Amino acid sequence: MTIQPLDDRVLVKVLEEEEQRSGHIIIPDVAKEKPRIGQVLAVGTDEDLQEKIKVNDKILFAKYGGEEIKLNGEDLLVVQRSDILAIIKE
Amino acid sequence: MTIQPLDDRVLVKVLEEEEQRSGHIIIPDVAKEKPRIGQVLAVGTDEDLQEKIKVNDKILFAKYGGEEIKLNGEDLLVVQRSDILAIIKE
Amino acid sequence: MTIQPLDDRVLVKVLEEEEQRSGHIIIPDVAKEKPRIGQVLAVGTDEDLQEKIKVNDKILFAKYGGEEIKLNGEDLLVVQRSDILAIIKE
Amino acid sequence: MTIQPLDDRVLVKVLEEEEQRSGHIIIPDVAKEKPRIGQVLAVGTDEDLQEKIKVNDKILFAKYGGEEIKLNGEDLLVVQRSDILAIIKE
Amino acid sequence: MTIQPLDDRVLVKVLEEEEQRSGHIIIPDVAKEKPRIGQVLAVGTDEDLQEKIKVNDKILFAKYGGEEIKLNGEDLLVVQRSDILAIIKE
Amino acid sequence: MTIQPLDDRVLVKVLEEEEQRSGHIIIPDVAKEKPRIGQVLAVGTDEDLQEKIKVNDKILFAKYGGEEIKLNGEDLLVVQRSDILAIIKE
Amino acid sequence: MTIQPLDDRVLVKVLEEEEQRSGHIIIPDVAKEKPRIGQVLAVGTDEDLQEKIKVNDKILFAKYGGEEIKLNGEDLLVVQRSDILAIIKE
Repeated sequence: MTIQPLDDRVLVKVLEEEEQRSGHIIIPDVAKEKPRIGQVLAVGTDEDLQEKIKVNDKILFAKYGGEEIKLNGEDLLVVQRSDILAIIKE
Repeated sequence: MTIQPLDDRVLVKVLEEEEQRSGHIIIPDVAKEKPRIGQVLAVGTDEDLQEKIKVNDKILFAKYGGEEIKLNGEDLLVVQRSDILAIIKE
Repeated sequence: MTIQPLDDRVLVKVLEEEEQRSGHIIIPDVAKEKPRIGQVLAVGTDEDLQEKIKVNDKILFAKYGGEEIKLNGEDLLVVQRSDILAIIKE
Repeated sequence: MTIQPLDDRVLVKVLEEEEQRSGHIIIPDVAKEKPRIGQVLAVGTDEDLQEKIKVNDKILFAKYGGEEIKLNGEDLLVVQRSDILAIIKE
Repeated sequence: MTIQPLDDRVLVKVLEEEEQRSGHIIIPDVAKEKPRIGQVLAVGTDEDLQEKIKVNDKILFAKYGGEEIKLNGEDLLVVQRSDILAIIKE
Repeated sequence: MTIQPLDDRVLVKVLEEEEQRSGHIIIPDVAKEKPRIGQVLAVGTDEDLQEKIKVNDKILFAKYGGEEIKLNGEDLLVVQRSDILAIIKE
Repeated sequence: MTIQPLDDRVLVKVLEEEEQRSGHIIIPDVAKEKPRIGQVLAVGTDEDLQEKIKVNDKILFAKYGGEEIKLNGEDLLVVQRSDILAIIKE
């Protein structure tokens, strides 16, 4: 079973704090309402978005962006393009 | 008698919680106001939407999206495209 | 005397509750603020709308949509396209 | 002296309640904040509007639409297109 | 020294109440917050507006429209197109 | 060092009250929250704006428009096009 | 590891107050909520923005614009184009 986001949304797995740290990006403690990092599981149907964001990319997105769902025990979020701040490249 | 949604809306049958679970997608308990799943009964008149969503697709949509109606004893919702998060494929 | 709605509006006669039931569409009791059904008396001047909605169609529309008028003792509503959810076909 | 509405506005003379009744359109008593009828005195400079609405047409418009002016003792209103619901044809 | 309004604005001299009356347009007493009349001193840089409104035209505009300035002792207003209701022709 | 405004903004030096008076434009005392005058130091990157407003032009702008900065002891403002009312020509 | 802003955003390193002063631009003390200066580390994927803003440019942006992140101990901000006031050239 797969989930195909519609239009300009992406499906992401939210990375735990340790995982977020390991990449040397630290979201400040005082900023619990600040951006979070997620790994892209699926990109929406919008073609322009598909050129810019790929499966497995790590993205930085505004914390209150996204609708939560749980799939096979994992926390997933469906995030809109307007809430995606940046793509993290390693 | 059939119901043809207008423009960018879809008509869905909301799936019961057990049905939602069986597909291994679980909407968290703490998240009663989170997305729900519905099975598509009819797609709106918008052609672009008709290419992306088909009858019988299962879609994930924002809980407060949609206008409730009851047809022959079933709970149905008319949901706008902007409230549709993703298409679930099996 | 006829009433020609302007632009993307339609003129409808609101169907009584029994009439709404007979078609097997039931608006739930707890949902007095839910969608209503109307029979189309006239379609607005917008050409695209005229292709999609015809006189005598039954439409489902959001309850608080529409401006009430009374014509020869009948309750009529002028409803905007954005408040029309679906066309009911029999 | 004439008044030429700008863009998508029309200038109307609001019809008195008796006049409104005589045409068999009755705005319900409980609906003092409901639509009113006016006779068009001048149509705005917008060409598309000029094709749809003519001088002497009777139009139905949302009550709180329009800016009041008084010209030679008559109550006139300048009404925007978005507040015009329908054209009444006899 | 001249003032050239930018884009879709016009510069007007607000006419005194007597002047407004003399033209037989009377803004009702109960309507101190209703439209006012001004004489156009300069039209904005927008070409479409320049075709519709000319220097010396009298315009009717929404009272709370416009930003006040004083030039050589005269009350002037810079009024946006969206606040201009009509052009008064004599 | 120079400051190049982005898009449809201009950088202005706010003129002191005496300077504003000397040009015979007086902002009324009761209107401390009314428009102010500034001399243009730089025009944004928008080409259409560059045709309409030039360096050294005096512009009239809405008081609460603009973001304040201080450069070498001078009060400067970065003002958006939508807050610019008029260009003052001498 | 690099961060690639999406669409019309830029990634900036906020300059400390001394650094801001050294360039002779002083944000007034009374204006702690006024614009700040940042050095551009990466420009978003939008091509038009890439023509106007380059890596290493110093930009002036509205204080409450931007989402904070911390990368290797540095305060970084992801700032939207609409919050960028000007480019500082030396």
